[in-house]
Amino acid sequence: MSTDLKVAEVVISPAQLLAHWQGHRNVTRRVIEAFPEKELFNFSIGGMRTFAELTMELIGIAGPGLNEIVTGEKAELVEKFNPENKKANLLAMWDQTTKTINELWPKLTPARFQESIIAFGMYEGTVQSTLFYFIDNEIHHRGQGYVYLRSLGIAPPFFYER
Amino acid sequence: MSTDLKVAEVVISPAQLLAHWQGHRNVTRRVIEAFPEKELFNFSIGGMRTFAELTMELIGIAGPGLNEIVTGEKAELVEKFNPENKKANLLAMWDQTTKTINELWPKLTPARFQESIIAFGMYEGTVQSTLFYFIDNEIHHRGQGYVYLRSLGIAPPFFYER
Repeated sequence: MSTDLKVAEVVISPAQLLAHWQGHRNVTRRVIEAFPEKELFNFSIGGMRTFAELTMELIGIAGPGLNEIVTGEKAELVEKFNPENKKANLLAMWDQTTKTINELWPKLTPARFQESIIAFGMYEGTVQSTLFYFIDNEIHHRGQGYVYLRSLGIAPPFFYER
Repeated sequence: MSTDLKVAEVVISPAQLLAHWQGHRNVTRRVIEAFPEKELFNFSIGGMRTFAELTMELIGIAGPGLNEIVTGEKAELVEKFNPENKKANLLAMWDQTTKTINELWPKLTPARFQESIIAFGMYEGTVQSTLFYFIDNEIHHRGQGYVYLRSLGIAPPFFYER
Protein backbone atom coordinates (compact mmCIF):
# COMPACT_ATOMS: atom_id res chain seq x y z
CA MET A 1 0.00 0.00 0.00
CA SER A 2 1.27 3.41 -0.91
CA THR A 3 0.40 6.69 0.77
CA ASP A 4 1.37 8.55 -2.38
CA LEU A 5 -1.43 10.38 -4.08
CA LYS A 6 -1.82 10.62 -7.78
CA VAL A 7 -0.76 14.19 -8.52
CA ALA A 8 -3.57 14.38 -11.06
CA GLU A 9 -6.15 14.38 -8.26
CA VAL A 10 -4.74 16.78 -5.69
CA VAL A 11 -4.74 20.56 -5.41
CA ILE A 12 -1.01 20.52 -4.67
CA SER A 13 1.29 17.63 -3.82
CA PRO A 14 3.84 17.70 -0.98
CA ALA A 15 6.68 17.92 -3.54
CA GLN A 16 4.94 20.81 -5.28
CA LEU A 17 4.42 22.64 -1.98
CA LEU A 18 8.14 22.28 -1.19
CA ALA A 19 9.02 23.68 -4.63
CA HIS A 20 6.49 26.49 -4.09
CA TRP A 21 8.04 27.42 -0.74
CA GLN A 22 11.64 27.19 -1.91
CA GLY A 23 10.73 29.16 -5.04
CA HIS A 24 9.42 31.97 -2.87
CA ARG A 25 12.51 31.68 -0.66
CA ASN A 26 14.68 32.16 -3.76
CA VAL A 27 12.90 35.44 -4.47
CA THR A 28 13.33 36.61 -0.88
CA ARG A 29 17.03 35.78 -1.05
CA ARG A 30 17.35 38.05 -4.09
CA VAL A 31 15.57 40.83 -2.17
CA ILE A 32 18.08 40.50 0.70
CA GLU A 33 20.90 40.65 -1.85
CA ALA A 34 19.40 43.73 -3.53
CA PHE A 35 19.70 45.83 -0.35
CA PRO A 36 22.88 47.81 0.16
CA GLU A 37 24.65 46.54 3.27
CA LYS A 38 23.91 49.66 5.32
CA GLU A 39 20.26 50.08 4.38
CA LEU A 40 19.53 46.41 4.98
CA PHE A 41 20.23 47.01 8.67
CA ASN A 42 19.24 50.67 9.03
CA PHE A 43 16.49 51.61 6.62
CA SER A 44 12.79 51.41 7.33
CA ILE A 45 9.56 53.31 6.68
CA GLY A 46 6.84 54.41 9.11
CA GLY A 47 8.53 52.98 12.20
CA MET A 48 8.53 49.44 10.80
CA ARG A 49 11.34 46.93 11.22
CA THR A 50 14.35 46.95 8.92
CA PHE A 51 14.47 44.31 6.21
CA ALA A 52 17.24 42.58 8.17
CA GLU A 53 14.89 42.32 11.15
CA LEU A 54 12.09 40.99 8.95
CA THR A 55 14.56 38.49 7.45
CA MET A 56 15.57 37.28 10.90
CA GLU A 57 11.91 36.69 11.73
CA LEU A 58 11.61 34.58 8.57
CA ILE A 59 14.76 32.61 9.40
CA GLY A 60 13.54 32.18 12.98
CA ILE A 61 10.26 30.72 11.75
CA ALA A 62 11.11 28.51 8.77
CA GLY A 63 13.74 26.04 10.00
CA PRO A 64 12.71 25.77 13.66
CA GLY A 65 9.01 25.77 12.72
CA LEU A 66 9.36 22.94 10.22
CA ASN A 67 11.64 21.02 12.57
CA GLU A 68 8.96 21.23 15.27
CA ILE A 69 6.30 20.01 12.83
CA VAL A 70 8.42 17.10 11.61
CA THR A 71 10.07 15.96 14.86
CA GLY A 72 7.58 17.12 17.49
CA GLU A 73 10.40 18.80 19.45
CA LYS A 74 9.11 22.09 20.79
CA ALA A 75 10.47 25.18 19.03
CA GLU A 76 11.06 28.60 20.51
CA LEU A 77 10.51 31.62 18.32
CA VAL A 78 13.83 33.46 18.16
CA GLU A 79 13.82 36.48 15.86
CA LYS A 80 16.99 38.20 17.01
CA PHE A 81 20.34 36.83 16.05
CA ASN A 82 23.68 38.51 16.10
CA PRO A 83 24.99 38.41 12.59
CA GLU A 84 27.26 41.39 13.29
CA ASN A 85 25.06 43.34 10.88
CA LYS A 86 26.62 41.60 7.90
CA LYS A 87 24.54 40.76 4.85
CA ALA A 88 26.80 37.78 4.16
CA ASN A 89 25.88 36.29 7.55
CA LEU A 90 22.16 36.70 6.90
CA LEU A 91 22.54 35.05 3.48
CA ALA A 92 24.53 32.17 5.00
CA MET A 93 21.77 31.61 7.57
CA TRP A 94 19.23 31.80 4.76
CA ASP A 95 21.07 29.12 2.79
CA GLN A 96 21.42 26.92 5.84
CA THR A 97 17.65 27.14 6.29
CA THR A 98 17.18 26.12 2.65
CA LYS A 99 19.17 22.93 3.32
CA THR A 100 17.34 22.28 6.59
CA ILE A 101 13.96 22.52 4.86
CA ASN A 102 15.05 20.17 2.06
CA GLU A 103 16.34 17.65 4.60
CA LEU A 104 13.26 17.76 6.81
CA TRP A 105 10.62 17.78 4.08
CA PRO A 106 10.79 14.08 3.04
CA LYS A 107 10.08 13.14 6.67
CA LEU A 108 6.71 14.88 6.51
CA THR A 109 4.28 12.14 5.48
CA PRO A 110 1.18 13.08 3.43
CA ALA A 111 -1.08 12.01 6.29
CA ARG A 112 0.38 14.75 8.51
CA PHE A 113 -0.79 17.85 6.59
CA GLN A 114 -4.28 17.87 8.12
CA GLU A 115 -3.07 17.15 11.64
CA SER A 116 -3.83 19.76 14.34
CA ILE A 117 -0.76 21.35 15.89
CA ILE A 118 0.26 24.30 18.04
CA ALA A 119 3.28 25.96 16.41
CA PHE A 120 5.87 27.54 18.69
CA GLY A 121 3.65 26.68 21.64
CA MET A 122 1.23 29.43 20.62
CA TYR A 123 -0.27 29.22 17.16
CA GLU A 124 -3.09 26.73 16.71
CA GLY A 125 -3.75 25.31 13.28
CA THR A 126 -3.10 22.35 11.09
CA VAL A 127 0.23 21.42 9.55
CA GLN A 128 -0.97 22.77 6.20
CA SER A 129 -2.39 26.04 7.56
CA THR A 130 0.84 26.55 9.53
CA LEU A 131 3.06 25.94 6.49
CA PHE A 132 0.95 28.27 4.35
CA TYR A 133 1.19 30.83 7.15
CA PHE A 134 4.98 30.59 7.05
CA ILE A 135 4.97 31.10 3.27
CA ASP A 136 2.34 33.86 3.27
CA ASN A 137 4.10 35.72 6.08
CA GLU A 138 7.27 35.67 4.00
CA ILE A 139 5.46 37.00 0.90
CA HIS A 140 3.88 39.71 3.10
CA HIS A 141 7.17 40.93 4.55
CA ARG A 142 9.00 40.59 1.25
CA GLY A 143 6.36 42.83 -0.35
CA GLN A 144 7.28 45.38 2.30
CA GLY A 145 10.93 44.98 1.33
CA TYR A 146 9.96 45.83 -2.25
CA VAL A 147 8.64 49.21 -1.04
CA TYR A 148 11.86 49.83 0.91
CA LEU A 149 13.90 49.07 -2.21
CA ARG A 150 11.73 51.28 -4.45
CA SER A 151 11.97 54.04 -1.89
CA LEU A 152 15.78 53.68 -2.07
CA GLY A 153 15.64 53.92 -5.86
CA ILE A 154 16.57 50.24 -6.30
CA ALA A 155 14.66 47.97 -8.69
CA PRO A 156 13.55 44.83 -6.81
CA PRO A 157 13.82 41.35 -8.36
CA PHE A 158 10.92 40.09 -10.46
CA PHE A 159 8.15 38.73 -8.23
CA TYR A 160 7.25 36.03 -10.75
CA GLU A 161 10.79 34.67 -11.16
CA ARG A 162 11.22 31.80 -8.73
CA MET B 1 -17.33 6.51 -7.90
CA SER B 2 -16.46 9.72 -6.12
CA THR B 3 -13.72 12.12 -7.08
CA ASP B 4 -13.66 13.48 -3.53
CA LEU B 5 -10.47 12.89 -1.66
CA LYS B 6 -10.31 12.14 2.00
CA VAL B 7 -9.16 15.44 3.53
CA ALA B 8 -6.92 13.43 5.86
CA GLU B 9 -4.63 12.55 2.97
CA VAL B 10 -4.22 15.82 1.07
CA VAL B 11 -2.03 18.86 1.59
CA ILE B 12 -5.03 21.13 1.11
CA SER B 13 -8.51 20.34 -0.17
CA PRO B 14 -10.36 22.47 -2.75
CA ALA B 15 -12.71 23.72 -0.01
CA GLN B 16 -9.76 24.63 2.18
CA LEU B 17 -8.06 26.48 -0.67
CA LEU B 18 -11.24 28.50 -1.26
CA ALA B 19 -11.38 29.39 2.45
CA HIS B 20 -7.67 30.27 2.35
CA TRP B 21 -8.17 32.60 -0.61
CA GLN B 22 -11.33 34.25 0.74
CA GLY B 23 -9.66 34.61 4.15
CA HIS B 24 -6.83 36.55 2.54
CA ARG B 25 -9.35 38.57 0.54
CA ASN B 26 -11.07 39.53 3.81
CA VAL B 27 -7.77 40.95 5.08
CA THR B 28 -7.21 42.88 1.86
CA ARG B 29 -10.72 44.32 2.10
CA ARG B 30 -9.88 45.64 5.57
CA VAL B 31 -6.69 47.22 4.17
CA ILE B 32 -8.73 49.02 1.47
CA GLU B 33 -11.12 50.22 4.20
CA ALA B 34 -8.24 51.42 6.38
CA PHE B 35 -7.05 53.93 3.75
CA PRO B 36 -8.47 57.44 3.90
CA GLU B 37 -10.43 58.13 0.70
CA LYS B 38 -7.88 60.60 -0.66
CA GLU B 39 -4.71 58.60 0.09
CA LEU B 40 -6.21 55.42 -1.33
CA PHE B 41 -6.18 57.11 -4.74
CA ASN B 42 -3.25 59.51 -4.39
CA PHE B 43 -0.62 58.15 -2.03
CA SER B 44 2.32 55.99 -3.02
CA ILE B 45 6.02 55.50 -2.22
CA GLY B 46 9.02 55.30 -4.54
CA GLY B 47 7.04 55.81 -7.73
CA MET B 48 4.91 52.73 -7.11
CA ARG B 49 1.21 52.47 -7.87
CA THR B 50 -1.41 53.73 -5.42
CA PHE B 51 -3.21 51.12 -3.33
CA ALA B 52 -6.34 51.79 -5.42
CA GLU B 53 -4.37 50.86 -8.55
CA LEU B 54 -3.00 47.72 -6.87
CA THR B 55 -6.54 46.85 -5.77
CA MET B 56 -7.82 47.22 -9.32
CA GLU B 57 -5.14 44.82 -10.51
CA LEU B 58 -6.31 42.30 -7.91
CA ILE B 59 -9.95 42.74 -8.93
CA GLY B 60 -8.95 42.45 -12.58
CA ILE B 61 -7.21 39.15 -11.91
CA ALA B 62 -9.39 37.27 -9.43
CA GLY B 63 -12.86 37.10 -10.96
CA PRO B 64 -11.91 37.08 -14.67
CA GLY B 65 -8.97 34.73 -14.01
CA LEU B 66 -11.06 32.18 -12.15
CA ASN B 67 -13.86 32.48 -14.71
CA GLU B 68 -11.37 31.67 -17.47
CA ILE B 69 -10.09 28.65 -15.53
CA VAL B 70 -13.57 27.32 -14.83
CA THR B 71 -15.33 28.07 -18.11
CA GLY B 72 -12.46 28.10 -20.60
CA GLU B 73 -13.66 31.48 -21.94
CA LYS B 74 -10.61 33.62 -22.65
CA ALA B 75 -10.07 36.46 -20.19
CA GLU B 76 -8.48 39.83 -20.85
CA LEU B 77 -6.43 41.41 -18.11
CA VAL B 78 -8.10 44.74 -17.34
CA GLU B 79 -6.54 46.62 -14.44
CA LYS B 80 -8.05 50.04 -14.99
CA PHE B 81 -11.63 50.70 -14.10
CA ASN B 82 -13.38 53.95 -13.57
CA PRO B 83 -14.74 53.87 -10.08
CA GLU B 84 -14.81 57.69 -9.97
CA ASN B 85 -12.06 57.42 -7.35
CA LYS B 86 -14.53 56.33 -4.70
CA LYS B 87 -13.54 53.82 -2.06
CA ALA B 88 -17.16 52.63 -1.88
CA ASN B 89 -17.04 51.65 -5.56
CA LEU B 90 -13.82 49.68 -5.09
CA LEU B 91 -15.29 47.88 -2.09
CA ALA B 92 -18.48 47.08 -4.05
CA MET B 93 -16.37 45.60 -6.85
CA TRP B 94 -14.38 43.68 -4.26
CA ASP B 95 -17.57 42.21 -2.78
CA GLN B 96 -18.92 41.33 -6.22
CA THR B 97 -15.67 39.42 -6.86
CA THR B 98 -16.12 37.57 -3.56
CA LYS B 99 -19.53 36.35 -4.76
CA THR B 100 -18.20 35.48 -8.21
CA ILE B 101 -15.42 33.35 -6.71
CA ASN B 102 -17.86 31.53 -4.41
CA GLU B 103 -20.20 30.82 -7.32
CA LEU B 104 -17.46 29.60 -9.67
CA TRP B 105 -15.49 27.51 -7.19
CA PRO B 106 -17.82 24.48 -6.95
CA LYS B 107 -17.55 24.11 -10.74
CA LEU B 108 -13.81 23.50 -10.44
CA THR B 109 -13.49 19.72 -10.19
CA PRO B 110 -10.56 18.24 -8.21
CA ALA B 111 -9.12 16.71 -11.37
CA ARG B 112 -8.58 20.18 -12.85
CA PHE B 113 -5.97 21.54 -10.40
CA GLN B 114 -3.01 19.87 -12.12
CA GLU B 115 -4.18 20.76 -15.63
CA SER B 116 -1.86 22.95 -17.74
CA ILE B 117 -3.34 26.30 -18.72
CA ILE B 118 -2.33 29.68 -20.12
CA ALA B 119 -3.94 32.38 -17.98
CA PHE B 120 -4.99 35.61 -19.66
CA GLY B 121 -3.46 34.28 -22.88
CA MET B 122 0.03 34.85 -21.47
CA TYR B 123 0.88 33.08 -18.24
CA GLU B 124 1.73 29.39 -18.53
CA GLY B 125 1.21 27.16 -15.53
CA THR B 126 -1.20 24.72 -13.99
CA VAL B 127 -4.54 25.58 -12.46
CA GLN B 128 -3.02 25.24 -8.99
CA SER B 129 0.10 27.29 -9.71
CA THR B 130 -2.10 29.98 -11.30
CA LEU B 131 -4.46 30.12 -8.33
CA PHE B 132 -1.56 30.30 -5.88
CA TYR B 133 -0.07 33.05 -8.03
CA PHE B 134 -3.32 35.03 -7.75
CA ILE B 135 -3.27 34.61 -3.95
CA ASP B 136 0.46 35.28 -3.53
CA ASN B 137 0.30 38.35 -5.75
CA GLU B 138 -2.47 39.70 -3.52
CA ILE B 139 -0.45 39.05 -0.34
CA HIS B 140 2.56 40.75 -2.00
CA HIS B 141 0.68 43.92 -2.94
CA ARG B 142 -1.23 44.00 0.35
CA GLY B 143 2.10 43.90 2.19
CA GLN B 144 2.99 47.01 0.21
CA GLY B 145 -0.28 48.59 1.33
CA TYR B 146 0.77 47.95 4.93
CA VAL B 147 3.87 50.11 4.38
CA TYR B 148 1.72 52.85 2.82
CA LEU B 149 -0.58 52.77 5.86
CA ARG B 150 2.30 52.78 8.36
CA SER B 151 3.87 55.64 6.46
CA LEU B 152 0.55 57.51 6.83
CA GLY B 153 0.54 56.81 10.57
CA ILE B 154 -2.35 54.36 10.28
CA ALA B 155 -2.28 50.94 12.00
CA PRO B 156 -3.04 48.23 9.41
CA PRO B 157 -5.37 45.31 10.19
CA PHE B 158 -3.89 42.18 11.77
CA PHE B 159 -2.27 40.00 9.11
CA TYR B 160 -3.25 36.81 10.93
CA GLU B 161 -6.93 37.68 11.29
CA ARG B 162 -8.75 36.19 8.33
